[in-house]
Amino acid sequence: MSSTNPGTAGPRGKRRPRSDGEQSRTVILDAAARLATVEGIGGLSIARLADAVGMSKSGLFGHFGSKEELQLATVEKADSLFAAQVIEPASTASTALQRLRLLVDGYLRYVEVDTFPGGCFFASVLAEVDMQPGAVRDAQAEGAIDPQEDAGQLAFEVEAALFLANAQYVVTRTAEPIERARRAIDRRLATAVTRAPS
Amino acid sequence: MSSTNPGTAGPRGKRRPRSDGEQSRTVILDAAARLATVEGIGGLSIARLADAVGMSKSGLFGHFGSKEELQLATVEKADSLFAAQVIEPASTASTALQRLRLLVDGYLRYVEVDTFPGGCFFASVLAEVDMQPGAVRDAQAEGAIDPQEDAGQLAFEVEAALFLANAQYVVTRTAEPIERARRAIDRRLATAVTRAPS
Repeated sequence: MSSTNPGTAGPRGKRRPRSDGEQSRTVILDAAARLATVEGIGGLSIARLADAVGMSKSGLFGHFGSKEELQLATVEKADSLFAAQVIEPASTASTALQRLRLLVDGYLRYVEVDTFPGGCFFASVLAEVDMQPGAVRDAQAEGAIDPQEDAGQLAFEVEAALFLANAQYVVTRTAEPIERARRAIDRRLATAVTRAPS
Repeated sequence: MSSTNPGTAGPRGKRRPRSDGEQSRTVILDAAARLATVEGIGGLSIARLADAVGMSKSGLFGHFGSKEELQLATVEKADSLFAAQVIEPASTASTALQRLRLLVDGYLRYVEVDTFPGGCFFASVLAEVDMQPGAVRDAQAEGAIDPQEDAGQLAFEVEAALFLANAQYVVTRTAEPIERARRAIDRRLATAVTRAPS
């Protein structure tokens, strides 16, 4: 059983040749993360996953000793995909407002490119912790967002559009909910912004 | 096995004494609808439900001959609760805009009074069919909503706030998401309304 954690290597970390074990682990975890968005992380079992990737149960057991280990590794995998597609691109922003916009864009793109067949892996978690008003508050601290705005309220409204876009996209597979969310957020941010982003 | 359908009697239908069979059926279906919002309608079985209401499996079988019959009756029950708490109160509105506002109020109240422990029974369906722009379009046809407004876009934004309020309320059990949704929708409708509602 490998204890390599593919989620902890930085995206710009030195590339090294991957072992066969690491490669199969990556293939398995990609499939597991996709399956979990449809079946739920609780519905993920070594038997079902072995079926999905066309491996034997014992082969899969060589990578993950238990269902729990598989589930944890799957969450880690989804987390690193989310970081690479949504969080990291936004880290290049030069202002907090631009970071907020990049987070929104990244999230909508991530939903739209069908990273996961069941939609955002973290949507149910998002509903729980939501974006947190952090990004909004940072933009407010920099003076880009009106000091009168309630950061929690604005974050709720941005999050609401993202959350419904994800849920509807999973059903419709059309760009419409993505576009509607983009329009709703642009419009709402326009009322909140005090000056043009630098 | 009773074939009485409690969902089809109008709310103002003539009251008649209920048989014991109907009363237990109501108790069972209330429990079933609550359980289904937590476990999913697919997770509803006669055995689990018998456990939840403290009845024997065979007693429950006297009311519902199969799991499928139980599931269908549960959806009907949830539908009639939703109609009574959200749809019917809005039918008293004298204008389409007032109806839209009553639908929003009714939905938020329905989430907040904990009709179901797992939140709105229909939230996953809502994401699919959403409110439909019907109520918004009606208000536009009556001249209460700006003809320049994209009814589908406005409906998306209203729905987004309701959808996230439901999801967050289930986790937080605080009035905050309900209040945030109310504020977001009031604010959004204020920009769309062409004149004070009559």
